[in-house]
Amino acid sequence: MAFTLDTKHLTHAGVLAMLNAAVAAAEALGQPQCIVIVDASGEVLGEIRMTGAKFLSRKSARAKARTAASIGAPTTAIPEAARPHIAAATGGEVTGLGGGLPIRVDGVLIGGIGVGSGSADQDIDVAKAALSAIGADD
Amino acid sequence: MAFTLDTKHLTHAGVLAMLNAAVAAAEALGQPQCIVIVDASGEVLGEIRMTGAKFLSRKSARAKARTAASIGAPTTAIPEAARPHIAAATGGEVTGLGGGLPIRVDGVLIGGIGVGSGSADQDIDVAKAALSAIGADD
Amino acid sequence: MAFTLDTKHLTHAGVLAMLNAAVAAAEALGQPQCIVIVDASGEVLGEIRMTGAKFLSRKSARAKARTAASIGAPTTAIPEAARPHIAAATGGEVTGLGGGLPIRVDGVLIGGIGVGSGSADQDIDVAKAALSAIGADD
Amino acid sequence: MAFTLDTKHLTHAGVLAMLNAAVAAAEALGQPQCIVIVDASGEVLGEIRMTGAKFLSRKSARAKARTAASIGAPTTAIPEAARPHIAAATGGEVTGLGGGLPIRVDGVLIGGIGVGSGSADQDIDVAKAALSAIGADD
Repeated sequence: MAFTLDTKHLTHAGVLAMLNAAVAAAEALGQPQCIVIVDASGEVLGEIRMTGAKFLSRKSARAKARTAASIGAPTTAIPEAARPHIAAATGGEVTGLGGGLPIRVDGVLIGGIGVGSGSADQDIDVAKAALSAIGADD
Repeated sequence: MAFTLDTKHLTHAGVLAMLNAAVAAAEALGQPQCIVIVDASGEVLGEIRMTGAKFLSRKSARAKARTAASIGAPTTAIPEAARPHIAAATGGEVTGLGGGLPIRVDGVLIGGIGVGSGSADQDIDVAKAALSAIGADD
Repeated sequence: MAFTLDTKHLTHAGVLAMLNAAVAAAEALGQPQCIVIVDASGEVLGEIRMTGAKFLSRKSARAKARTAASIGAPTTAIPEAARPHIAAATGGEVTGLGGGLPIRVDGVLIGGIGVGSGSADQDIDVAKAALSAIGADD
Repeated sequence: MAFTLDTKHLTHAGVLAMLNAAVAAAEALGQPQCIVIVDASGEVLGEIRMTGAKFLSRKSARAKARTAASIGAPTTAIPEAARPHIAAATGGEVTGLGGGLPIRVDGVLIGGIGVGSGSADQDIDVAKAALSAIGADD
């Protein structure tokens, strides 16, 4: 194996485009949301708490974003039976709550987005709108 | 959407009125309580631990107050099946334990109150007495 | 030495009397304050953040109350040269900031009060008003 | 004193306007920044870490934003001699580092902005650009 490999990272232009698209989608649904975007190491790149969103959903949205970035898959991919055990072993950092999606561009995993304050379906819809805004992989 | 919106906040006169009413209600029940009052962002405005109340109930009372302020509803509104998952994803901050109520005046959410050390019914009764003292919405 | 000794503790009636007196004194000064009262083990018995007080002063007021309860003396009794070292060694829990006073009744140390958001002189004046309200030792 | 008082809060439209203006100002300076916006109780409303900004500056930017919101003044208003003591007593939450400004609209304190990763002067310039974008008081 080579000592280094090429990768990509998400710029702040990408983050702003995602936040704007997520807010627009949440406004269209009439459901204020907390939206958190992290890089491939789980560090926050950007976030917004919409007017009327639950302030504690910032924490669950962050957990969703970090989980999705860590596993490279939607948070809901974690098997239901395993969720309490993995949550306990990671201090709650790995969550199976719906609303966390990986950010992958041209097949390269570059981060995760987590959305929380609505139903799981609403959270996922808002996250997908953000991914579309930067042409991320489905 | 405008850059700012009008809202209300709870004054310390309101907090003292709530604490006094809660203590009186708890004394009438013969059940010492921990009572915590937070603002709409979950920051503590006031609290008291009554003589004989469990000191660790300060923590659960705080979680109840913050949860109610965050969701704008009683803590018991959180669906039972979701509780362990949401608790884990928020480091235990979101709780479904009875005894947390939102503080809403003229329809405006201005905070939350959490009561702990008694049974769920006792905790809720004490919280309701505090809300009545300031003419908060039911 | 006997295996147990008699002591006293501060009731919630005492805590409410102290909070009310402190708030009245702060209103008379025109300086909103954060006021924290702890027991002889440093556990919070009661607190209030007045309207317009700095929310981060809750933390320093808590440190002042715990320091005074721990050392059984005003926070300012800690020698100036030692302050940074003791603060570092206790994670900031021991503070020499003015505004922390021990609560002592009939010579028995039963807790501490910490006040923060004003000048050190204002903080100390408000703490003294609270002590007077329960007939605590000077 | 009434039990509630009227106030204002910053909407997410305001937060997005501030983040966009801050990013534009930082790009014009050629200095990537971490920008954090909090409400009047210090809870995060929005943040962005620009491409090339120091990731640990997220923490100092958050402390700057919370300090400015708490004291209702620029972080640099904290007297230099007091800084180490107040920082210690608040677990590092109160900072005198330049780059934190209060957000005040029509005289009402509604939050704080913290900027970090550049020099103090650059941080302050970027924060001021964000305030201008929503017509906040100087």
